[in-house]
Amino acid sequence: MAGPDVFLPDPLAAAAAKKELCTAYGFEGVFPLDAELDLTGVGPHEAALRISRANEDLIRGCELMVAHVTPFRGPSADVGTAYEMGFARALGKRVFAYTNVEVDFPTRTERFVQRVRERPTGEREDENGLQIEAFGLDDNLMLIGAIEDSGGALFRATVPAGREFLDLEAFERCLSHARRVLATTLAQGS
Amino acid sequence: MAGPDVFLPDPLAAAAAKKELCTAYGFEGVFPLDAELDLTGVGPHEAALRISRANEDLIRGCELMVAHVTPFRGPSADVGTAYEMGFARALGKRVFAYTNVEVDFPTRTERFVQRVRERPTGEREDENGLQIEAFGLDDNLMLIGAIEDSGGALFRATVPAGREFLDLEAFERCLSHARRVLATTLAQGS
Repeated sequence: MAGPDVFLPDPLAAAAAKKELCTAYGFEGVFPLDAELDLTGVGPHEAALRISRANEDLIRGCELMVAHVTPFRGPSADVGTAYEMGFARALGKRVFAYTNVEVDFPTRTERFVQRVRERPTGEREDENGLQIEAFGLDDNLMLIGAIEDSGGALFRATVPAGREFLDLEAFERCLSHARRVLATTLAQGS
Repeated sequence: MAGPDVFLPDPLAAAAAKKELCTAYGFEGVFPLDAELDLTGVGPHEAALRISRANEDLIRGCELMVAHVTPFRGPSADVGTAYEMGFARALGKRVFAYTNVEVDFPTRTERFVQRVRERPTGEREDENGLQIEAFGLDDNLMLIGAIEDSGGALFRATVPAGREFLDLEAFERCLSHARRVLATTLAQGS
């Protein structure tokens, strides 16, 4: 369960709620804080590295990923989550995802940047001259490619304001779908 | 060469400038656009998937990565770049990086969010109650962990306003360092 949920005021409660849903759908949910690192007396830099290593080890031990890609401090998903999606994908794991914002990525980006200008070629760019991805996807194409090419899927919800990082309805739909996908894969013996 | 350089008005010129530096330091530079995909008549969704696959294939063929992690539309690096760092790291490749913004990640994040509040536990959080990483790193700990644990390094520069996505001085220092690291590794036969 990759996602910015670790930054919530009560991440253990968030983890418990997600794990309960995982169990209900036949999965054993693994949350970044499961490593239970003892960081007493450890300096911040070394602590960060130990957390990073523990997260990578947890991903290695999982069969699939459910990434929480609700836009985080900008038009895209949390970069830590994006990193973990790439890590999981390179290891051949299925990457599922959910977002609690349904507005598409080009629209979110155009709302976020300070200025949108059209290039002579028709592409659109921001105030730094940087192109705005216009594929109509839910986020950067690397993230969406990982989800689709790994046999995963992305689920979207619109939730009440303030619930973007808490609501688990799309997460639950994601689990339900993942369970069906896995059951089919097992039935096919692949 | 992962990074948001692909979004520049003239990405081929950026690629050429970076490749010239790579060659000068004994490397063969590989840029996302090297795949030269023919996307004529291909719909946007399928085009995005083909670009994603081509980028992953290019990473697989590289010995190391130099990621451009200058903050992109928010306090963190581009998520596509973060994804590719995770992908490279899981494949056991060294991840080097450079940024043209030297302000650290906690400071950037506090400047970006709408409100900073201190929790009773001393951690700091934004207007959504989401914690602000306070390890004093250059970006999210997963990205920094990948760089340090893979034997890579991160180089920083402060550049004139408007040159953040163009300046290659830190990129060049990164290549110079990577060359020394690789030479040492080869000399040790490991």
